Amino acid sequence: MTEELPHSAIDRRRLLSTMALLPALSVPLLTTPASAQVTASGPLPSWNDGPAKKAILDFVRETTDTASAKFVPLEERIATFDQDGTLWVEHPIYSQIVYCLDRVPSVVEKDPTLKDVEPFKTVLSGNREAIAKLSRPELEKILVATLTGMPVEVFNAEAKKWITTARDPRWKRPYTDLIYQPMLEVLQHLRSNGFKTYIATGGGQDFVRGYSQRVYDIPPEQVVGTAGGTKFSYTADGKPFLTKEPHLLLDDDKAGKPEGIHLMIGRRPSAAFGNSDGDRQMLEYTGAGEGARLMVLVMHDDDKREYAYGPAQGLPDTKVGAFTQALYDEAKKKNWTVISMKNDWKKIFPFD
Amino acid sequence: MTEELPHSAIDRRRLLSTMALLPALSVPLLTTPASAQVTASGPLPSWNDGPAKKAILDFVRETTDTASAKFVPLEERIATFDQDGTLWVEHPIYSQIVYCLDRVPSVVEKDPTLKDVEPFKTVLSGNREAIAKLSRPELEKILVATLTGMPVEVFNAEAKKWITTARDPRWKRPYTDLIYQPMLEVLQHLRSNGFKTYIATGGGQDFVRGYSQRVYDIPPEQVVGTAGGTKFSYTADGKPFLTKEPHLLLDDDKAGKPEGIHLMIGRRPSAAFGNSDGDRQMLEYTGAGEGARLMVLVMHDDDKREYAYGPAQGLPDTKVGAFTQALYDEAKKKNWTVISMKNDWKKIFPFD
Repeated sequence: MTEELPHSAIDRRRLLSTMALLPALSVPLLTTPASAQVTASGPLPSWNDGPAKKAILDFVRETTDTASAKFVPLEERIATFDQDGTLWVEHPIYSQIVYCLDRVPSVVEKDPTLKDVEPFKTVLSGNREAIAKLSRPELEKILVATLTGMPVEVFNAEAKKWITTARDPRWKRPYTDLIYQPMLEVLQHLRSNGFKTYIATGGGQDFVRGYSQRVYDIPPEQVVGTAGGTKFSYTADGKPFLTKEPHLLLDDDKAGKPEGIHLMIGRRPSAAFGNSDGDRQMLEYTGAGEGARLMVLVMHDDDKREYAYGPAQGLPDTKVGAFTQALYDEAKKKNWTVISMKNDWKKIFPFD
Repeated sequence: MTEELPHSAIDRRRLLSTMALLPALSVPLLTTPASAQVTASGPLPSWNDGPAKKAILDFVRETTDTASAKFVPLEERIATFDQDGTLWVEHPIYSQIVYCLDRVPSVVEKDPTLKDVEPFKTVLSGNREAIAKLSRPELEKILVATLTGMPVEVFNAEAKKWITTARDPRWKRPYTDLIYQPMLEVLQHLRSNGFKTYIATGGGQDFVRGYSQRVYDIPPEQVVGTAGGTKFSYTADGKPFLTKEPHLLLDDDKAGKPEGIHLMIGRRPSAAFGNSDGDRQMLEYTGAGEGARLMVLVMHDDDKREYAYGPAQGLPDTKVGAFTQALYDEAKKKNWTVISMKNDWKKIFPFD
């Protein structure tokens, strides 16, 4: 990479939508109800019968039956999944933002002059109300300081350590436990039928790649995410290494999702799964292809077992993963499948 | 992609190295000698016994034997291959440059005002000497005009049509016939042993993806190449599409190769194959990992069956795919494998 973007550019849309939600870190701990007993057999045991389950099973059947007009050759079977809110919990705040805030003490330890410099000073104070009021440029400084500037291997080790030790405040479990069992079954069912399953996330590509194999059985090379550049150089004794740079190569959200899919995969997916307005363009792009198509949106309408937010269909509004009424109307008009977590899913998490 | 690079930036290093070679288009047609009869059995039948063949076979054996200290788990088996000069012929000029020059009449047909504008006027003249003297900014204009500005699907169709109809001037065959049979066998042997084989090329990612499956059995998503951004938008009737943009995201040559590998694959390869100084950093990066490592360079020392160029080891100098003495010395020092096309390969092409 010989060119740099004119200024450090970290996923502003996500930042903006996240800032207002920081106070929600203090969301009260709710008890998780006992999940329904899983007795169904077949490829999607955690799904109730209904149009969502039927649409997924029909799509897989039609695309893999050589006698079907909608048959898709093996090598062209691509399915993309948003992560935050589609494969795992995104409320009250994206896990990666928590990671960045958690990393600030280490950053300051390495460079003590930052101790009294904003925004680091405020983050160190632990004052959530003050943290929530940080300006966008201040939050960007935190992302740049915690996600870039270090060798790739150093970042990977730090992020992997965090993801295995950090705990979600509501369930008091690792964030990687908070994955949706019904979606794991969809991933598995697609793979069993020859589909390559990809993550297409607005989250950091390197961050998600660190656990995607273990958590979703999706290898790092099948994770497309927001990605900065790296810089190749040598240690004093001549060993080459890559440093994470602050310039943004791919802002993998909204229009950036189909752009990222083209860059990293080079094929239009046959199926795409999302849950928010950030996934709209990915689903539109997927739907514009020929032959069999499956576009699916997860609607978070289960405030008992997980969270309820829209603002579609009168659900509470949110700035993290908003599912607007306009998106809902487009989904209905285009015959996309909308999953009701409350009605379509027998259980939410593997540990239920 | 919301950010753009400050100016259109097309792979300057390759351009520079290509310009001086344009006169070589008029290289005299040589006759191809009858190839040696392939009688050997085993996974690399077109290879003569020797240190290069042994290094490849040993590497595969050691990395796939669970009893070996150098065993590599299945999901981590990644091998990357340069294309130009490593998998197919790159002399006298990169095929993609020929494509761009060939496309100029169509570009002018669509916009006749370009007919009398440089550099299009010169290219239309067919005067090879004048074409070879085009300045770097002028050649960039040709690349931008022929590789960007159109919907992805339009480019893909144009490039696919060209690659099936254009003919190399020496062998009078499609460029995709001019692939190295011994390297096809290496690709196949690695894949048979669970390796994912990737192309890491300085050529255009979309260009190579158009034929990689058919020619190398490498799917588009396993091609990493020089890549520009795309822009998502809608047709008048609301259908989404991607347009190829002139800003460069990845200059996949030299240091850009390990950077591109990190971006697109996210793993350090265990094996890497190249043939020129443009592959040096990829091989260094590959070699810097732990465990079993295989770094291989193809040396073009066969002016009868293909071409001979270095300037390493006293071979003729070149500006297309130079293999310098410094690279040769580094290879020897680091125990990389250097393939002699002349001595190690029984045949060069599948049609031999």
